Amino acid sequence: MDPTLLLAHIRKHVKLDLPEQQLLASSLVEKSVKRKEFVLKQEESCKHIYFVNSGLLRAFHLSPQGKDSTIMFATKEWWITDMYCFVNRLPAMVNIQAVQDCELLSLSKDHLDKVFSEIPRFERYFRILMENAYSREQLRMIQNLSNTAKERYNTFLNKYPDISAHVTQKQIASYLGITPEFLSAIRAEKD
Amino acid sequence: MDPTLLLAHIRKHVKLDLPEQQLLASSLVEKSVKRKEFVLKQEESCKHIYFVNSGLLRAFHLSPQGKDSTIMFATKEWWITDMYCFVNRLPAMVNIQAVQDCELLSLSKDHLDKVFSEIPRFERYFRILMENAYSREQLRMIQNLSNTAKERYNTFLNKYPDISAHVTQKQIASYLGITPEFLSAIRAEKD
Repeated sequence: MDPTLLLAHIRKHVKLDLPEQQLLASSLVEKSVKRKEFVLKQEESCKHIYFVNSGLLRAFHLSPQGKDSTIMFATKEWWITDMYCFVNRLPAMVNIQAVQDCELLSLSKDHLDKVFSEIPRFERYFRILMENAYSREQLRMIQNLSNTAKERYNTFLNKYPDISAHVTQKQIASYLGITPEFLSAIRAEKD
Repeated sequence: MDPTLLLAHIRKHVKLDLPEQQLLASSLVEKSVKRKEFVLKQEESCKHIYFVNSGLLRAFHLSPQGKDSTIMFATKEWWITDMYCFVNRLPAMVNIQAVQDCELLSLSKDHLDKVFSEIPRFERYFRILMENAYSREQLRMIQNLSNTAKERYNTFLNKYPDISAHVTQKQIASYLGITPEFLSAIRAEKD
């Protein structure tokens, strides 16, 4: 179990002492997933949150009509789960699938609550993470409501070069809320 | 300064002792705003977060082309700010305007940081708030990407009856990311 990357990420925001680092590390479970493997499926109970040591994952919702909507991607140093269902202990609304082979650190809801109680500075780290995640979604909402699809595509390419290099155009289109055909038209125009 | 409603809201999540309640109350400033008045304008620095004691506010982004996009509404017991700009001390990307006369409690970034340091249980309350806010935005993103405009309109009416009764159809349309004409067509179909 290698928490080096996570501890470095935490260190950007708060300082944990050695016993706190050890307690946190003892709550984590290493998980290797192969490309195309799922760590969460819609309707399943969502009991874990994952920190990405390496690789790339995609969270997507499948509507009853079969429409695939990309909710988020997560690459190295990101946390990912179905937050609404994880927090409220509800069946998952999204699937989380590996786009590339991944090395993850898994933390259960019960362990996370225990870590919050025992390490207030970890709760601070998580409060900051949640502020950033909320801010990111609010920013995405502003862009979705006020920018053109072409602007949003260019923003995505600039903001997430590591992600856009490894996912399909269809997945990017479904993240941007447009059809793959429309994205093709935008890209043809761009070139 | 009446923090009763805020303290009751906090009590749903964490328990503050009397000195903590007093410290928090001493960090808050009461603010009355009249209908149509702004508490934040785009490009201004965003230094405060507001708790709504009564009334209704709307946060919206105006694009350079003049397109008005509703980012969120906030009614009694909600917190509102431009979170991305508040957290990162950047110029605001949204306007926040009173839809009805409001009584607010205002908390500055400096005071909030001080309260986090001195009252870890308030930081827990805020961590939970941020998880809920992030979850809500993620849920909204799932709905925006996978549901039809009609489904989203009906969800909005059911979820926020207090808000929908007091805002214009144009404002609801801009929250849903559709034109007012399209919303009219949906409503005509509905009746």
